[in-house]
Amino acid sequence: MSYVKGLAGIVAGQTKISSTDNQRLTYAGYPIEELAQKTFEEVVFLLWNTRLPDQDELLRFRNDLVSKMVLPAETIRLLSYIAREPQHPMSILRTTTSLLGTTNDVEHDEPPKILSKMLTAIAAIVRIRDDDPLIDLDPTLGVADNFLYMLTGKRPNAELSGMFNTVMILHADHEFNASTFTARVVSSTFSDYYSCLTAAVCALKGPLHGGANERVFEMLSIIVENEMDPLSFVAEQAHAKRKIMGFGHRIYKNGDPRAFILKEIAAKLAEETNNQKYFEIQQQLADYMLKNKQLHPNVDYYTALIYHCLGLKKETFTMIFAACRTAGWLAHVMEQRSQKCLIRPNSEYIGPKERHCVR
Amino acid sequence: MSYVKGLAGIVAGQTKISSTDNQRLTYAGYPIEELAQKTFEEVVFLLWNTRLPDQDELLRFRNDLVSKMVLPAETIRLLSYIAREPQHPMSILRTTTSLLGTTNDVEHDEPPKILSKMLTAIAAIVRIRDDDPLIDLDPTLGVADNFLYMLTGKRPNAELSGMFNTVMILHADHEFNASTFTARVVSSTFSDYYSCLTAAVCALKGPLHGGANERVFEMLSIIVENEMDPLSFVAEQAHAKRKIMGFGHRIYKNGDPRAFILKEIAAKLAEETNNQKYFEIQQQLADYMLKNKQLHPNVDYYTALIYHCLGLKKETFTMIFAACRTAGWLAHVMEQRSQKCLIRPNSEYIGPKERHCVR
Ligand SMILES: CC(C)(COP(=O)(O)OP(=O)(O)OC[C@H]1O[C@@H](n2cnc3c(N)ncnc32)[C@H](O)[C@@H]1OP(=O)(O)O)[C@@H](O)C(=O)NCCC(=O)NCCS
Ligand SMILES: CC(C)(COP(=O)(O)OP(=O)(O)OC[C@H]1O[C@@H](n2cnc3c(N)ncnc32)[C@H](O)[C@@H]1OP(=O)(O)O)[C@@H](O)C(=O)NCCC(=O)NCCS
Repeated sequence: MSYVKGLAGIVAGQTKISSTDNQRLTYAGYPIEELAQKTFEEVVFLLWNTRLPDQDELLRFRNDLVSKMVLPAETIRLLSYIAREPQHPMSILRTTTSLLGTTNDVEHDEPPKILSKMLTAIAAIVRIRDDDPLIDLDPTLGVADNFLYMLTGKRPNAELSGMFNTVMILHADHEFNASTFTARVVSSTFSDYYSCLTAAVCALKGPLHGGANERVFEMLSIIVENEMDPLSFVAEQAHAKRKIMGFGHRIYKNGDPRAFILKEIAAKLAEETNNQKYFEIQQQLADYMLKNKQLHPNVDYYTALIYHCLGLKKETFTMIFAACRTAGWLAHVMEQRSQKCLIRPNSEYIGPKERHCVR
Repeated sequence: MSYVKGLAGIVAGQTKISSTDNQRLTYAGYPIEELAQKTFEEVVFLLWNTRLPDQDELLRFRNDLVSKMVLPAETIRLLSYIAREPQHPMSILRTTTSLLGTTNDVEHDEPPKILSKMLTAIAAIVRIRDDDPLIDLDPTLGVADNFLYMLTGKRPNAELSGMFNTVMILHADHEFNASTFTARVVSSTFSDYYSCLTAAVCALKGPLHGGANERVFEMLSIIVENEMDPLSFVAEQAHAKRKIMGFGHRIYKNGDPRAFILKEIAAKLAEETNNQKYFEIQQQLADYMLKNKQLHPNVDYYTALIYHCLGLKKETFTMIFAACRTAGWLAHVMEQRSQKCLIRPNSEYIGPKERHCVR
């Protein structure tokens, strides 16, 4: 039996949603570099419909999403209890995503409501853990701005709004990454939306996937707090054969196109918030990794600094990733459903040869 | 790009845990027909260690598992609230599985504790929904007997105990089925055990997978309640191109080896509990499907009747499947972790060709 480790390079399905062909990221045919200038809701519409909305459609879509950014009172009650647990926020988000589909009448929730609820729930987890009051949506703001407002309690100015929309857009989809593929396998059994998303959150949590952004900042903090030399730090890690989080990618071997855009945003925000020291360390580490390991930063590398500059705690970083990626997960779950085909691979058995019970 | 729908026949990884090679099911080399005579805990040991335990090991393993079949008070408190929700029990189990890993100090929970907690939680969900008092474990009983006792409030006699152990063993593993594969993808990101299991529950819920057993009994009930002729019923479904739940399998094309054993148990239990009418209908449907569709019953077909005869409600059937399969999920999650390789396939992009934003 032929067998490729980790399904690397194996085509597991067809999609119209996004592509990394030729090491370029496109959503429904549009290069990510151009989409980065749009608003998050425009791109969500694109991912769900494989075309951009006209002005009317966009306004309606935006209003619909924003108006749905509320949680049932019962969910908030449970959340205020669960979110305080001394567990990782991604464990709490896992429970919360499932809870969104367990309480109240949710059998008929559709993607717009589900996405909106997820954003609000993630903001609520962050605030409950910080003992901050929950923020109600502002109907005059767009989806990304409302999300940021609900997270931080501050309405973003135009520049910050633009940057945060870009961050959300760049994280919104990435064809068959591990969490999206997980969501598709679950969808292929005809399980419900909330089950697909909960499973995706479970996969995103892992340090080899979305969990990397938190660990990037952890590394930067260690270097800063201990006043270490970044180059000796990274050399030591390399010597111990430890992976440096935020580097490498299954698909991109010449650099992650998202990282180029995110690097600029990180630089700008770091300067504005007096966090240049982190950015400088990042550049030193990146130079080292490229020279010595031929590895480039991935999407999680500069995002870590961006989220720090926004005032978020590192444990919450992967939840922000989840908020953005929910848009893509839902697109893939819908597409997989329409393909009506169970995803069920084979395995190669390499265990003990035929044996028999003696008694 | 070559592409096989649903990864059918594509080897996604190597395993020492179980095999369906040559249309026979073996766990670590032992034919399922022989293992069916063992106890559940013996088989769990086998799946986790790829060898059977000696008498001492078995006793210790059994005592360890049984002693861990308790839930933290806080979990029971939350559960008594969540389990009453008017949602599907599998949605509640999804939340519960995640909750087991969200509340209390669970970062270091290991497979024995996790499996034991899952069994107790599933029994608790069943009883809370029925407004029945929770049952404490009986340290003199084995794992399967305790599970059945906690579910039904009755200690099984030797014959029933034997049959229920067999049912649990037959459901314990099945190489890369959709839920196990989901668990492995999540494990491959180095996510935690509870995340892997929660994701597996999400996949098992689907009607093309574990959700089928509930739908089998739904079908039988419709036929019985409306005094329909089973053959006209199935012919009508076939005419409408609707799938008959409990038939067909991605791997087994000449019959599911588990179904042969389960059929005997169903026949015996149906007779003892005066449910022969269901069994007779099942035989008529099976004859029709074989003659007209060349399709055989799968693991879910006779299990549905078995669970009914045990006094369980159809909505809870898939949870019982989950309880048994947790053993296999954990085996695969451990194995995948040790292989240290992200599962991340490619996709084939078939969407709109290169496009550009005009504004
Ligand atoms: C993302 C990732 C899982 C891709 O993995 P992959 O395609 O399976 O590649 P591998 O893990 O097999 O890596 C290939 C080689 O590069 C090395 N490598 C990959 N990423 C590395 C990293 N971040 N630091 C150091 N070495 C790395 C591996 O050790 C391996 O070396 P070897 O061939 O000498 O064994 C991997 O690069 C990684 O673990 N990165 C760190 C986690 C991370 O940032 N994840 C977020 C991804 S968006
Ligand atoms: C289990 C299952 C998903 C396997 O699927 P698969 O390998 O992808 O096979 P397909 O669904 O493509 O089925 C192949 C053909 O058999 C038919 N078929 C398969 N299962 C059928 C069923 N239960 N009833 C009627 N027709 C069925 C399909 O319609 C298809 O026919 P076509 O070639 O004319 O389109 C499928 O048999 C099924 O859906 N069964 C019912 C659900 C069930 O019992 N699941 C529990 C599995 S343990």
